[in-house]
Amino acid sequence: MIRHTVAFTLNHAKGSAEEKKFLEDALVLAEIPGVEKFERLRQVSPKNNFSFGFSMEFADQAAYDIYNNHPLHVAFVRDRWLVEVSDFMEIDYVAI
Amino acid sequence: MIRHTVAFTLNHAKGSAEEKKFLEDALVLAEIPGVEKFERLRQVSPKNNFSFGFSMEFADQAAYDIYNNHPLHVAFVRDRWLVEVSDFMEIDYVAI
Repeated sequence: MIRHTVAFTLNHAKGSAEEKKFLEDALVLAEIPGVEKFERLRQVSPKNNFSFGFSMEFADQAAYDIYNNHPLHVAFVRDRWLVEVSDFMEIDYVAI
Repeated sequence: MIRHTVAFTLNHAKGSAEEKKFLEDALVLAEIPGVEKFERLRQVSPKNNFSFGFSMEFADQAAYDIYNNHPLHVAFVRDRWLVEVSDFMEIDYVAI
């Protein structure tokens, strides 16, 4: 199992319609084959500056690669992520 | 639910006995009342410099506060974390 997470901040105003739409439209990522336990999260620690997070799990690296190269993911990154996200950090975990 | 995560890097050499012992001894944190789904994780993304992660969940902020103030947590931070961890980032999530 690989847990792929990304903490991020949007260009949009807090609580705005644009923010809400981005988070709703991100559900398209959960439709990609191999994506498990997709979660949209609010980041609440005062010890970093990120506002949101996505978390998902893949059975293995092959499933992760399929996700990365899938047209739905490529389009979301190109059309939404690169336009609307101001800062982010990817953190991926496997069991020790 | 609050998911408390921390990505971190140790002072110890990769694969060393000291690294193994730190990760083993961290299991004491899972004994603190209110800690759920405690996980010790290896960070595998090349897009950040952290080597490990812990993840745990609390039912609510009251349970999180109990954890933070618990003698086992206070002692682990004082005697091990501050001594053996070279870099870390805390990220806490709640459901949107």
